[in-house]
Amino acid sequence: MSDKLKVGILGATGMVGQRFISLLENHPWFEVVTVAASPRSAGKTYEEAVGDRWKMDTPMPEAVKKLVVHNVNEVEEVASTVDFVFSAVDMSKDEIKAIEDAYAKTETPVVSNNSAHRWTPDVPMVVPEINPEHMKVIEFQKKRLGTTRGFVAVKPNCSIQSYAPVLTAWKEFEPYEVVATTYQAISGAGKTFKDWPEMVGNIIPFIGGEEEKSEKEPLRIWGHIDEEKGEIVPATSPVITCQCIRVPVLNGHTAAVFVKFKKNPTKEQLIEKLESYKGVPQELGLPSAPKQFIRYMEEDNRPQVTLDVDYENGMGISVGRIREDSVYDWKFVGLSHNTVRGAAGGAVLCAELLKAQGYITKK
Amino acid sequence: MSDKLKVGILGATGMVGQRFISLLENHPWFEVVTVAASPRSAGKTYEEAVGDRWKMDTPMPEAVKKLVVHNVNEVEEVASTVDFVFSAVDMSKDEIKAIEDAYAKTETPVVSNNSAHRWTPDVPMVVPEINPEHMKVIEFQKKRLGTTRGFVAVKPNCSIQSYAPVLTAWKEFEPYEVVATTYQAISGAGKTFKDWPEMVGNIIPFIGGEEEKSEKEPLRIWGHIDEEKGEIVPATSPVITCQCIRVPVLNGHTAAVFVKFKKNPTKEQLIEKLESYKGVPQELGLPSAPKQFIRYMEEDNRPQVTLDVDYENGMGISVGRIREDSVYDWKFVGLSHNTVRGAAGGAVLCAELLKAQGYITKK
Amino acid sequence: MSDKLKVGILGATGMVGQRFISLLENHPWFEVVTVAASPRSAGKTYEEAVGDRWKMDTPMPEAVKKLVVHNVNEVEEVASTVDFVFSAVDMSKDEIKAIEDAYAKTETPVVSNNSAHRWTPDVPMVVPEINPEHMKVIEFQKKRLGTTRGFVAVKPNCSIQSYAPVLTAWKEFEPYEVVATTYQAISGAGKTFKDWPEMVGNIIPFIGGEEEKSEKEPLRIWGHIDEEKGEIVPATSPVITCQCIRVPVLNGHTAAVFVKFKKNPTKEQLIEKLESYKGVPQELGLPSAPKQFIRYMEEDNRPQVTLDVDYENGMGISVGRIREDSVYDWKFVGLSHNTVRGAAGGAVLCAELLKAQGYITKK
Amino acid sequence: MSDKLKVGILGATGMVGQRFISLLENHPWFEVVTVAASPRSAGKTYEEAVGDRWKMDTPMPEAVKKLVVHNVNEVEEVASTVDFVFSAVDMSKDEIKAIEDAYAKTETPVVSNNSAHRWTPDVPMVVPEINPEHMKVIEFQKKRLGTTRGFVAVKPNCSIQSYAPVLTAWKEFEPYEVVATTYQAISGAGKTFKDWPEMVGNIIPFIGGEEEKSEKEPLRIWGHIDEEKGEIVPATSPVITCQCIRVPVLNGHTAAVFVKFKKNPTKEQLIEKLESYKGVPQELGLPSAPKQFIRYMEEDNRPQVTLDVDYENGMGISVGRIREDSVYDWKFVGLSHNTVRGAAGGAVLCAELLKAQGYITKK
Repeated sequence: MSDKLKVGILGATGMVGQRFISLLENHPWFEVVTVAASPRSAGKTYEEAVGDRWKMDTPMPEAVKKLVVHNVNEVEEVASTVDFVFSAVDMSKDEIKAIEDAYAKTETPVVSNNSAHRWTPDVPMVVPEINPEHMKVIEFQKKRLGTTRGFVAVKPNCSIQSYAPVLTAWKEFEPYEVVATTYQAISGAGKTFKDWPEMVGNIIPFIGGEEEKSEKEPLRIWGHIDEEKGEIVPATSPVITCQCIRVPVLNGHTAAVFVKFKKNPTKEQLIEKLESYKGVPQELGLPSAPKQFIRYMEEDNRPQVTLDVDYENGMGISVGRIREDSVYDWKFVGLSHNTVRGAAGGAVLCAELLKAQGYITKK
Repeated sequence: MSDKLKVGILGATGMVGQRFISLLENHPWFEVVTVAASPRSAGKTYEEAVGDRWKMDTPMPEAVKKLVVHNVNEVEEVASTVDFVFSAVDMSKDEIKAIEDAYAKTETPVVSNNSAHRWTPDVPMVVPEINPEHMKVIEFQKKRLGTTRGFVAVKPNCSIQSYAPVLTAWKEFEPYEVVATTYQAISGAGKTFKDWPEMVGNIIPFIGGEEEKSEKEPLRIWGHIDEEKGEIVPATSPVITCQCIRVPVLNGHTAAVFVKFKKNPTKEQLIEKLESYKGVPQELGLPSAPKQFIRYMEEDNRPQVTLDVDYENGMGISVGRIREDSVYDWKFVGLSHNTVRGAAGGAVLCAELLKAQGYITKK
Repeated sequence: MSDKLKVGILGATGMVGQRFISLLENHPWFEVVTVAASPRSAGKTYEEAVGDRWKMDTPMPEAVKKLVVHNVNEVEEVASTVDFVFSAVDMSKDEIKAIEDAYAKTETPVVSNNSAHRWTPDVPMVVPEINPEHMKVIEFQKKRLGTTRGFVAVKPNCSIQSYAPVLTAWKEFEPYEVVATTYQAISGAGKTFKDWPEMVGNIIPFIGGEEEKSEKEPLRIWGHIDEEKGEIVPATSPVITCQCIRVPVLNGHTAAVFVKFKKNPTKEQLIEKLESYKGVPQELGLPSAPKQFIRYMEEDNRPQVTLDVDYENGMGISVGRIREDSVYDWKFVGLSHNTVRGAAGGAVLCAELLKAQGYITKK
Repeated sequence: MSDKLKVGILGATGMVGQRFISLLENHPWFEVVTVAASPRSAGKTYEEAVGDRWKMDTPMPEAVKKLVVHNVNEVEEVASTVDFVFSAVDMSKDEIKAIEDAYAKTETPVVSNNSAHRWTPDVPMVVPEINPEHMKVIEFQKKRLGTTRGFVAVKPNCSIQSYAPVLTAWKEFEPYEVVATTYQAISGAGKTFKDWPEMVGNIIPFIGGEEEKSEKEPLRIWGHIDEEKGEIVPATSPVITCQCIRVPVLNGHTAAVFVKFKKNPTKEQLIEKLESYKGVPQELGLPSAPKQFIRYMEEDNRPQVTLDVDYENGMGISVGRIREDSVYDWKFVGLSHNTVRGAAGGAVLCAELLKAQGYITKK
């Protein structure tokens, strides 16, 4: 019998759920043994339930095709089959909070792609290369939930992944004012061009709630644990202002960014900090960790979405066009894969980190 | 015989040349009588010379199909057939300057879409709704050229048309610092997706020379004529910083813009100024002038490229999403048609203004 | 015998030492029993040692006149006579650190007016109305020093007291960029006009080290305790830039300040927050606490140094001229007493807080 | 008989009037032949009329002591005695405009220290080193007034003279955002410490109308003549924000200034531009022109008011402490003499320029 940790996917039939299933095929530590979705999919095989809505580039893994889909609301039943779950359920924010808490209370860790719990004070929101130490707030969360093993951990929004890691790498220069405008792919809305033909050749200047997430979530990631209150206290700097705009791209969020620093660096220093940036995932060699987290591309016309989005299997960040600015100190362009690094891949890396830290174990 | 002014198109076979021909079909004042292009097209009919490279949505006008293409370098010959010309020649900057000057010296006014002469001190660069009075610098230019009737006038770059008119409408609030990032269509590079298949689903973070044009050209348009030197002196405010990025859109440049004002207005004031903004083209009822130069769209998800780019036949500007900002005073999104308002249509409107002002007449 | 805590003054003969002695006359909790100074003063009575260099407005208290001055370097001897000490010694930074640590290691708490220990990670730098909770870092300091009762606590620089409390009161509006220029009194240099006649009618645009203190110290006060490292981690926002300038004023530092907020408030909200601001000293009714910490003056020409510097016995802050700005969101003028609130008075209030928190007790 | 131009002083008994009389003693081109003041002084000798209110450091010139004071309102009478007048009358703004226009209409040029006409579109406001070409707008003014020889010219406010010349010297680096706080002498209010004892050791954070003048007047000086409208059009950049504060200094306005540039220079470039800055007064060798208009002082603690205010007989500007800033690009301190360069001396230099340009001649 496998030594791998047994994993369930909540919301397995949607686009992010599918991405989880793709990424976990042949994973060295995790094995998908259970898929759960809404009652209308329950009882069907995964293959039947998805039907022609499989949106990944690679074929559906054989190992999951015949799994029978559980009703995600049958919490005890689903939880009894797994060591932990990934959550990609598609419900209202309050329902998501309730169902993720319910799984946690069955002593089943939940690693979630959803935004519902991102501002719950004792839920860690983690980019493993940036703030792995935030996982410690789980101890306080367990006290609140009355659990010994169950908890919820989340990853931040896809839109911040093309600039928040970059600003982290430049932390010692003390960035204090940031303008970012985004060029966001349609897969961020769970769509392909087949589902959303009106987006071909179109631009939509609005993504609900996205600008607030893009401005505020980096500050929580750069925050610290208040040991007395048992919660994450967000950082207060830099101030970030965003405009988030949908463009006709399938995968890959680009950002055009302007930065002011308290300690203005040279271009050479900026590039050196990006390329030498390493985090716990690189040090531990976690299975999904990119070898090189951030790369700098010297060519004027890079990064480009179609050429560069899959860098490091979609887990690396590509940066280009660092140049001096007349109003800000520096401007640059960043690119990251929104459904890999920015969604399912980021959640898988969080789960790997949690295993390495001892928070996720065999039941 | 027609009372219309006889027009020649220099560079008639390229994408902007084609746009001129489309826009001038059935024009009440102007009639295309001559088409000129590079020597390799000379001698063919226009239909033959273009072949399958016709890129407009509407069919090639019958009236031009059988025109024989002239060699654009035969300046005297071409000039002798027309009252004035539009220039969309595709050459090096120095060659463009030389050939446009040569036509002017034959006493033939040149209205150019090219950037070559945009910073020649006595050449007016005009958006007719913004700085029609700059045409007066033509008097100084004629003295330099030794002409009585011939001159060169130009229009500014397509990228500025989605924010420069907006900032002009808000002039009394004294905008002094502006950040703009652009989402630029591929037709701005003279391409369609057929010509440039690599742009499908792609983003390229570089357009040569575009950021400098986007930052500097608005200042020249807001400048004044120094009567002693006989030249346009650019304004010095606001400072504008840009990132210009290519997106997979056929027609329509979008801009995400942030503005600081010396005299901070309310949202109501901003909208009122946009909607009430009128210029000389509206007052004179020029044939290509939009009735409403700038409209404000209240819906969160507008303007959208595919829905809104053709507003006022591509001559109007659509603005949306005016909202307060935490770093700047206000942010907004603007959209304009890059090959109509931003290129051939803007040049046609300039020619109409020049006729109304008496600078272009029958020879 | 008195129940009061027995206090020693280190550096008792200098200007700040004199201010301590003045402020502690008739203090309900503390009694000055020992004065210490440099070896050349040792052995004289305090009256003799000070001679004609008494700079206070009120006469030298009778109770200290006949005290024999100790050699401040005789640490054990001085420490044996007191429950705690105030330090105003005038030495090099390294010597100050060494002697303050030496007193702490004799289990004698040291409340210091000096800047030497302001950036020692486990030494609290406290404005009692702002960050009283920082005193908890003393537990970590004691571990380092190997003491059970002895420690060092400090107060911040005088120059920040006319704007740091104001910005704290406005914390919820998230100030993120601040410009401050100061108009600093000569008593901040330990001088009167008698000592420094060249300052009459003069301005000197330089005070060594002052600009860096003015920019950085507020961030440490707004920081938090990292429970793992056992140290204060400074806040990173707002960015503050200063010019610090000496003016011919005896007592009272004025500041002209410009502020940008992430959440821009109204003038009414700004005033309301100032006037309703209260801290632990007000709640506990500490003997030196001002009843009203910050007042707002509506008159255009206030606060004025000569009229307003002694507000709340020099322990209150006066603010005026809040007005909208064209570059920043708001500008204002603040005034505080530099040798009372900004030096000895601030240290006495710290000692009162430490007594109330149980860190200073009878030996 | 003297070849000098005959000068009248309007408002001769006040502080600025006295300064005019002092500065013009032994002037090579101008001779004070007439003094005029309010009706209550009329008929007395100048010596009697001033009485013990002589506020200059040097004695009252013998040549004026016995001049009989005219009633300033007897315009024809006063004007008939002189070639031109300096105006320092102390009346309401409307009265000043009216009386200065009345003198101009008698064909008597008026060089005024008052603010009344500073925004009259065809009245030049001039710092001779910065905008001598603005005097040409006098031609348009004369048309309005119906004069051939009479006009009004003014100088700007004293408060801008410690930073506006500096920013002018740095023009090619395109400063676009400026913060300035001032430390202003009491003679700017026409007072000495004898008249205004409450200012000893005091600071008053308000000077009526001063902040608006300090922010706006530099823009008019950097403006250009619109030849069609016949008026000065102010520049629109940089944006300047000020706080203007009174300090206990007799003569000399200091400013602490922060600057952002579009083209950020090095410190060496900044200093080089200051020291090499020359204007028309230096080129023509006008009698009151400083040899060196702006000097840079390398010492940390300079410029100081008492040491440096009289540099170049009070006609030069002293700058120091240029240093990099974390929010702005550069910060510095400037000093100028407010009643010499900033008032009467500036007006005398304007008159010298007007003579050199041919606008002021013998009647």
